[in-house]
Amino acid sequence: MAELRREPILQRWVVITGQRWEALAEVLRQRRGPGRRACPFCPGNEHETPSEVFALRDPASSPNREGWSVRVVPNKFPVLRIEGEIERAGEGVFDQASAVGAHEIVIETPSHSADWGTMAVEEVAGILRAYRQRSLDLRGDERFRQIMIARNHGPGVPVQHPHSHVMALPVIPRRIEDEVRGLLDYYGRKERCGYCDIIRQELSSGVRVIQETGEFLALASFAARYPFETWILPKSHLHDFAAIEDGQIAELAGLLQRLSRALQNLLPDLAYSVVLHTSPLRRFTEPRYHWHLEIRVRLAVGGGFEWGTGFFVNPLAPEEAARLLRAKLGEAQQPASPQSSLEP
Amino acid sequence: MAELRREPILQRWVVITGQRWEALAEVLRQRRGPGRRACPFCPGNEHETPSEVFALRDPASSPNREGWSVRVVPNKFPVLRIEGEIERAGEGVFDQASAVGAHEIVIETPSHSADWGTMAVEEVAGILRAYRQRSLDLRGDERFRQIMIARNHGPGVPVQHPHSHVMALPVIPRRIEDEVRGLLDYYGRKERCGYCDIIRQELSSGVRVIQETGEFLALASFAARYPFETWILPKSHLHDFAAIEDGQIAELAGLLQRLSRALQNLLPDLAYSVVLHTSPLRRFTEPRYHWHLEIRVRLAVGGGFEWGTGFFVNPLAPEEAARLLRAKLGEAQQPASPQSSLEP
Repeated sequence: MAELRREPILQRWVVITGQRWEALAEVLRQRRGPGRRACPFCPGNEHETPSEVFALRDPASSPNREGWSVRVVPNKFPVLRIEGEIERAGEGVFDQASAVGAHEIVIETPSHSADWGTMAVEEVAGILRAYRQRSLDLRGDERFRQIMIARNHGPGVPVQHPHSHVMALPVIPRRIEDEVRGLLDYYGRKERCGYCDIIRQELSSGVRVIQETGEFLALASFAARYPFETWILPKSHLHDFAAIEDGQIAELAGLLQRLSRALQNLLPDLAYSVVLHTSPLRRFTEPRYHWHLEIRVRLAVGGGFEWGTGFFVNPLAPEEAARLLRAKLGEAQQPASPQSSLEP
Repeated sequence: MAELRREPILQRWVVITGQRWEALAEVLRQRRGPGRRACPFCPGNEHETPSEVFALRDPASSPNREGWSVRVVPNKFPVLRIEGEIERAGEGVFDQASAVGAHEIVIETPSHSADWGTMAVEEVAGILRAYRQRSLDLRGDERFRQIMIARNHGPGVPVQHPHSHVMALPVIPRRIEDEVRGLLDYYGRKERCGYCDIIRQELSSGVRVIQETGEFLALASFAARYPFETWILPKSHLHDFAAIEDGQIAELAGLLQRLSRALQNLLPDLAYSVVLHTSPLRRFTEPRYHWHLEIRVRLAVGGGFEWGTGFFVNPLAPEEAARLLRAKLGEAQQPASPQSSLEP
C-alpha cells in the first residue's frame, strides 16, 4: 500500500507506492520490446480509462464517449488514492503518512501525436481551462495542501499521447516550501517580492527576455540549471494560478504555443517538462508567493552532477538560449510550415 | 567564459559554462550517430588526455604511458578552471562568481568495459585510494570549500570507459548545505547525529539493511526517492571521507564490489550514479556532518514529477529493495561466474 515518507535530515516527502519488483521489471521489459497496445487516451478508447471528472466536449456528445477536445480522468494507476483519512505515524526517527490525495490525468487533445507547438491556441487554452477547473474543484477537499500540475513530453515518456498530471497533495513538496521560505526571507530584507524584482530587472536589461506579452513574461532563468530552462511568470504579483482569468488564459496559451513551436523547431525530437508552481492551500496559503511555470528541456548534455549534490552544470548561457529562442519566435511570425523552413 | 551564478530565491549555485549552441548541437548529433572515435581513456591513448596528476602504476612504467591501474587527469573539458582568483559580483538581485575550481577525471581501470561489480576488490580499493589522495591534495588550495566526487555508469553516459569526476568547488552545493542544516537542527533538538540515529534504528529493525560489515552499513533509504536507492555509511561518526584508513578502504571496496555485482545481476544494462557526500572544508568544516555514499539506480519507472517539484514518487518499497539485494548478495557468496547463474 502506498505511503508518504519523510526523510529525517532533509525533511523531504516521498511517495512509496510499493509495487512488486516482478511487476516493475515486467513494465521495463515491455518498454524495451516492440509491441505496444493501443493508446488508452485516443478517441474510441474512452472505456479504458476511469470515468471523466471534467471534459470540454461537443454539447451533442455524451460523457465517456467521443466528441471531446480535452478530457480529465482519475489516473487508472494513481500514485495517491482519493479515499481515506490522512493517518500520520512515527517509527523512531522516521515519519510517515498514508498516501491520500488525488491523481488525475488531463488528456489534452484527441490527437495522439499533437503537441502544444502544433495545436491551435484555442486548444492550448482549453488545457489551461482544465487545469484551472481541476485546481478549483480539488481545493474543496480540506485534506489537501498543494495542487501540483506537471507534464512530460517527448522520447522517454511511457504514454506518448499528450497528457498532464494534476495531483492534490496532503503535504507541501520540498521545492515549493523552499521557494516560499526564500521569498519570505527576501520580503523580510526588502519588503518586496523576489520574483517581482526579477521581472523588473529582466525587463530593464532585456538580455534574458524570450518574449513579453501584456500580462506575461517568458525568461531564460539567470541561474538556469539546464539548457533552455524557461520560466513564465505573470507580470503582476499573483500567488494563485487558479485565479487566472479567461483573457489571461488566452494570452498564456498563445505564449506557450509559440514557445513550444520555437523550441521544437530549434531541437527536433524535443523532450521537455512543464511544471506549475503555485501557492499552497488553506492555512498554508501564502499571498507573498508568485505563481509561475518552469519549463525544462531534457538534453542530457550537462555534467550529470546534479543528482545527489544539487550542484548543476549548464553548458548553455541563458543569454544565448534567450537569443536563440527570440530568433526562432521571430521566424515563426511568418506563416510558414514549421517543419520545412525552420529545421536547423 | 564559465561563471557561477546563484538563483536569488532558492540560493542555489549553478555553473554556466557558456558553450556555443552550435557546438552543443553538434555533440548531440554525434551522440545519435553510429561512428565514435577511439576511447581517450584506454591504455595506449594516454597522450589524448592532459598529464596525469596521480596514478597507481607499475614502478617500471613512466607517467602518461601504459602500465597504470588507476590514473587521474585534469578534465580536458573542465567545468571549472583551476587558475584565477574567485571574483564575486552582483547584478541587481543576482549574484555571480568566476567559476574557479578543479575538475579531474579518475580513469578507474585500463579495461574499457569493466565495472565495480566485475573488478577485483583490490582494483576498487585503488579507485577509493585515488579519491582519498585527490581529496587530500585539493584541499590544500584555500579557495575551495567542497570536494565532490561522483560517477555515472551505464547507458546514456557519453564515455563508457569507467571513470569518476572529482571536483573542488569554491561554493557549497545546495544539497550538502541542506544536509548540514538538517543535521545541525537535529543536533539542536536531540544532541545526537541524525545519521547515527538512523544507523542505530536500521540495525535494530533490520528490514532495510542490505549488508553490514565491521565498519560500514549499506541501507535502502527509508524515504528512498528511486528504486534501489542505497546509502553506505560508516557506522562510526566520521565527518570527513578523506580521513578514511587503509583497512576501511579495503572493507568499503569489498562492499561496493559485492553491491554493484548484486545490482547488475538483478538489473541487466544497469545505469547508476554514485555520489560522495562529505563535510565542507576549512572554516565550513562541520564535525557534526556524517559522510556517506548515495547510490541511485536510474530506471525511469517513477512518475517524472521530481523535476521542478522536489516531490518524488518511488514505486518500489525500500524494504522490498533491501530484500531483493540481500538475496542476490547471498547468491553471490557462491564462487560462480556472475553472468551464468545469477541472470534473472
